[in-house]
This record gives sequence, C-alpha cells and structure tokens, in this order.
Amino acid sequence: MKKHNFSAGPCILPQEVLLKASEAVVDFNGSGLSLIEISHRSKDFVEVMENARALALELLDLEGKGYKALFLQGGASTQFLMVAYNFLETKSGYLNTGTWSDKAIKEAQFFGEVVEVGSSKDENFNYIPKGYTIPQGLDYLHLTSNNTIFGTQLKKFPKSDAPLICDMSSDIFSRQIDFSQFDLIYAGAQKNMGPAGATLVIVKEEVLGKVSRQIPSMMNYEVHISKDSMFNTPAVFPVYVSMLTLQWLKDMGGIAAIEAINDKKAQLLYSEIDLSPAFEGYANKADRSNMNATFNLTDDRLKDTFEELLKEGGINGLNGHRSVGGYRASMYNALSLESVGTLVDIMSEMERRG
Amino acid sequence: MKKHNFSAGPCILPQEVLLKASEAVVDFNGSGLSLIEISHRSKDFVEVMENARALALELLDLEGKGYKALFLQGGASTQFLMVAYNFLETKSGYLNTGTWSDKAIKEAQFFGEVVEVGSSKDENFNYIPKGYTIPQGLDYLHLTSNNTIFGTQLKKFPKSDAPLICDMSSDIFSRQIDFSQFDLIYAGAQKNMGPAGATLVIVKEEVLGKVSRQIPSMMNYEVHISKDSMFNTPAVFPVYVSMLTLQWLKDMGGIAAIEAINDKKAQLLYSEIDLSPAFEGYANKADRSNMNATFNLTDDRLKDTFEELLKEGGINGLNGHRSVGGYRASMYNALSLESVGTLVDIMSEMERRG
Repeated sequence: MKKHNFSAGPCILPQEVLLKASEAVVDFNGSGLSLIEISHRSKDFVEVMENARALALELLDLEGKGYKALFLQGGASTQFLMVAYNFLETKSGYLNTGTWSDKAIKEAQFFGEVVEVGSSKDENFNYIPKGYTIPQGLDYLHLTSNNTIFGTQLKKFPKSDAPLICDMSSDIFSRQIDFSQFDLIYAGAQKNMGPAGATLVIVKEEVLGKVSRQIPSMMNYEVHISKDSMFNTPAVFPVYVSMLTLQWLKDMGGIAAIEAINDKKAQLLYSEIDLSPAFEGYANKADRSNMNATFNLTDDRLKDTFEELLKEGGINGLNGHRSVGGYRASMYNALSLESVGTLVDIMSEMERRG
Repeated sequence: MKKHNFSAGPCILPQEVLLKASEAVVDFNGSGLSLIEISHRSKDFVEVMENARALALELLDLEGKGYKALFLQGGASTQFLMVAYNFLETKSGYLNTGTWSDKAIKEAQFFGEVVEVGSSKDENFNYIPKGYTIPQGLDYLHLTSNNTIFGTQLKKFPKSDAPLICDMSSDIFSRQIDFSQFDLIYAGAQKNMGPAGATLVIVKEEVLGKVSRQIPSMMNYEVHISKDSMFNTPAVFPVYVSMLTLQWLKDMGGIAAIEAINDKKAQLLYSEIDLSPAFEGYANKADRSNMNATFNLTDDRLKDTFEELLKEGGINGLNGHRSVGGYRASMYNALSLESVGTLVDIMSEMERRG
C-alpha cells in the first residue's frame, strides 16, 4: 500500500533522493566505497559540501550579497544558544509564537536580557502577534517563521534597526521571501531539506564579530566560516542528502515552482477543513501555515472512525502535538498534491458519516 | 577491484552494516517508509535509540554501574567544550598527547584554568608522557586514549583523585579496558562505531551537577540524560548505523573478540615496518597505536613506486596527516586481517625493489 507521509519532522523526502542516498551508502559515485566510510577531506566529499552550500545560497537568491552558508550539527536547539553567544551583548528581542520561540528565549537568557516584543501565549499561540512595538537598541530581533505545533506562519516580517535573525526550520525553501532582509537564518534540515543531523545556517558576514565575549570554537560562526564549514568532521550523510534535496528543488524550478504546489496543497486541505462540519481549524485563518495544518474533529466520538479510515488510506503521521491535540497535517515540499487529495477524500467521507 | 579502506576517519564500517543501512534508507523495518522520514518519537526509532544506548553500556561492561549513555551531535569538538562547561569550576588537568588534546585544552581555557600535567610536544608527540605528577584539587583530569595523527595510544591510564575524563574517539570498542575507572568517556562515532554525525557520551551520573555556573540546555549532560538522549531531534541515521555496528560487534563476541583480531592486524603491520629496511615507524614502539600505524619510507625517492603499488592493490586512505607526513594505516575494527595482509604484501614488494 502506498504510504502518505504527513509526519511533522523528520518528514517526507523526495523518493528519488532516498534512492540515490541509499545507493551512496553502499557505493558512492562508483568508487567502490560507501559515502559514510571515506574521509570528509576527500575531494569527493568536499565537493558535496561546497555544492550544498552553494545550492542553499542560490535557491534563496543570496549569492553575491555577503552571505555564507554553513552546515553545522546540533539542530535549531544548538542555534538557540549560538545566536545568543554570537550576538547578545546586553539586550535582545524575541517574538514569541510558541514552543520553539519559547525555547530560544530560554537559552538566550543564559547570555543577557530578552525582551519579548510580542506573544500569542494568551490564546495558546493560535495566532501571530501583530502591531507590537520593537524597542530601540536591541542587539538583534529573533523570529520563528513557522510554528509546526500550532500551525501558524509569519506572512509578513517586521522591519527593525537591529539585525534580523530568523529560525526557518520548518518552512525554509517552501515559499518566496526576500531572504536578504535577514542577517541570519537557521534551519534544522529535517523538514524541507534533508534528514535530521544537519543544520543550515545562512549568515551575513558583516554582522559577526561584534560581541565582547570570548566564544568557544564550536559556538563561533566566524570559526566555521573560516574553515568552510569543515572546522570539524561534518555530519557527512545528512549533508549529502541535503545536497541531493536542494538539487531536486533546483531541478524542479526552485522555490517559485514549489511554492505554487505548496499553495495548492494548502488550499485543498484548508478548504475541506472550513467547509466540512466534521472538522474545525485550530490556527487563526490569517496566520495559517502552509506547511502544518492543525485541526480537530468537531465530534470527538468520531475519533475511532476517522483514525481507522486514515489507517486504511495509508495516511502516516497525522497526530497533533500533545500540547494542542487533534490532528496536524504537515505538507512539506516533498509531499505530493495526490497525498493531500487522499487525505481530503477521507475527510469528506467523515462528513458523510458525521 | 576490492578496496582496502585504511581511512583515518570517517572510516571503514562492516559491509553487512552498510547493506542494512542502505536498505533502511528506502524501507525501514518493512514499514514502507524510509528511516530518515519518520518521526524520531515513533516507537520504531525510540527502540533504535534505546537499543544503541544499551548496547554501548553492555559492550563496555558498564551496565548497572551508575552510567548513562547518550548519543549527541557535534563530534568530539563539541565535547571539548561541554566537558569544561559541566566540570570546570577552577582548575582542570590535561595530558597533552597531540592535536586533539591541544584542541580540548584550548576550549577548556574559555572556562577556567588548565594545568598541562604532561606533554610530548618536545618530540612532536611521537610518545606518550610518563612519570608526570598529577596536582591535587583538580576538577577533573582529561586524557585522549589514542592519537590518530601521531599513531600513539595510552596503554595504562593514570590514577587520580579527580574525576577521570577520556576522549576515546579513535579506539573505543577496540580493546578491553576497565572502563569503570572513567567518570566520563566520549567518542565521535566515525571510527569504530558508525558514520560521522553522532557522538557517544558515557557518563557516571553521580559526578554531574557540581559546577556553579548555569549551563545552556544543549550543553548540559543532565538535560540530555533527563530526556533519554532525545532532548531535541537526534541524528537519526548516524544513531541507527551506530546501533547496527554495535550489534555486529556484540554478535561477533564483543570487545574481547575484536581485540584479538586487532592485535593480530597490528602485529602483522608493525613487524613489517620493523623488519623492512624500506620503512621506519614514527611513534615510540612502547606507545604504538593498534588503531593507527604511522610510518615513513626510508628512501623518499621510492615514493612514486610505493604509491603506484598501493593504487594497484586497491589500498585507500594511506596518506599521513599533513602535520606528520609519510603514511598512516588505520586499522579500525571493521578492517579485515586480509586487508592488512594485502598492504604488507605491497610493503614486502617495496623491500625487494629498494
């Protein structure tokens, strides 16, 4: 049975990427050696790293604009800490849109003052705060572009005099944005880019080197830049699969092309949620994420029926996060419109049974 | 042509592990989904993580002795920093046996005083210091059990009142040691355990929580322990392959069994180095590593001939590190005695041509 993988992350990757990655684990580039048993300093792997870094900048239209791309380890959770290490001298600003912002704030507080410029905690983060004031004199302003748990997404980004830093773990490469408005972007690979274990950091070099504290090597963006993202042994396999996925995206027409498909997928699913009396959405309509749609059954007695139909239909990973409950359909780049169609068919069937 | 992979790391892994890993990338446990596109919170992956953690403790004979095993990210380079974050209050001791100790010392100095209890820098680290005095009142003593670059290995470990911390990145699981003499052991996976991107940490819980500084979450061993090594999304594929490799080692009889083979491989190669007038060893004989043998040609004019023969014989990864030059044969667990035999045959041929 074909599986439809709506997992929130690690999540679906393009089938052709999985096949190539699988092959490289036994024979990389026809070398007779596995990708994972060769030196990371070998010509073949250095090419992978350089290619991945270049593709990231190219797809985000940030080539020749003073940015560097790094593939580090430790996920966004390590970036929560590194951002503060490298930028927080006295006072930072954070927009709190839920769990991930909350965690980022907690880590920044180890290094200095954090001003929560806005928060949607009052409504369990089902909306994106608007109309907030950004104080003067911040070392940086930190945003989270998409919240996987609550299913919200920033559609507009605030202007600020301070450097703008954005956690784009769950929607990078999914929609067209002027990425040059950001000074630093970071993203765990395991949504639209690759497997868990690699973290993409895109940073404008000119904003670095301004804090007075000493920064340990692994926490220091400048150290990683000076070593072309190879200060230490990188996560070879996750970087390779990220490169393959970025190449897949480029080949299909880049972010503009995938955005058109992502829009169709989201419209199809949200239409069903809005039209069907059997379901109701969780997030505020204007702030809905095109990556993660959160919704509930209006009648909880139909839970078993719905979940039985999901199982029969090969739908995987639809459970909502424990802090919200209900359901969450994650529609990352590699998920097909057909898979969303299959889910919507099942939801329509629920309507008939409701 | 069969390749003989002497790469210093990332390095050779068992062929059966590579085949299973390759299969899991397209279909994990017959689920119809790839290992790298399922949730790390899924039952299937939680089992992998728990199995890997348990196997590590079992193979090191540390079960039921107050230790926890963690699979983190960031390599030994991140451990250089985490060790100091978690243990260095005022003064630490480091035995300097070359590059990796040097780097560990540099990172610890961001956090407090470092006493170099011994160093072999005077002879470009071709021996292991002995007869040094360990000062009283250290927060911990840090050792590096094996140096991949210079080809040296600690055969005996010093006794100390302070907690004993050891970087075993390049020889863990290769020889029998009383591992319970250590309070913390760490190792990048990419030698005897798995692919780059996972780092094993084995820590005795009772030694934690004694520094006064606040520790950011990702740097805090106690946080990772409290979340069963899943505080954030782990490096799924590297952890899975590590689990497969540890299972392979257990199935073949554990560390005692592999140590017997490793001894044979090392004896075969070092005998050739010592008996052949064409080669000379780099490291002090008493301190030679069973994992990485470093040697040079006695007549540099034979370089091209030797390297041509290596190529013809399918020998991969024999170049020495740039700081030592010459050659380095890394003989990690998965390398067969047959591969060492092939290398020794080529070295014997050089003798005839010399």
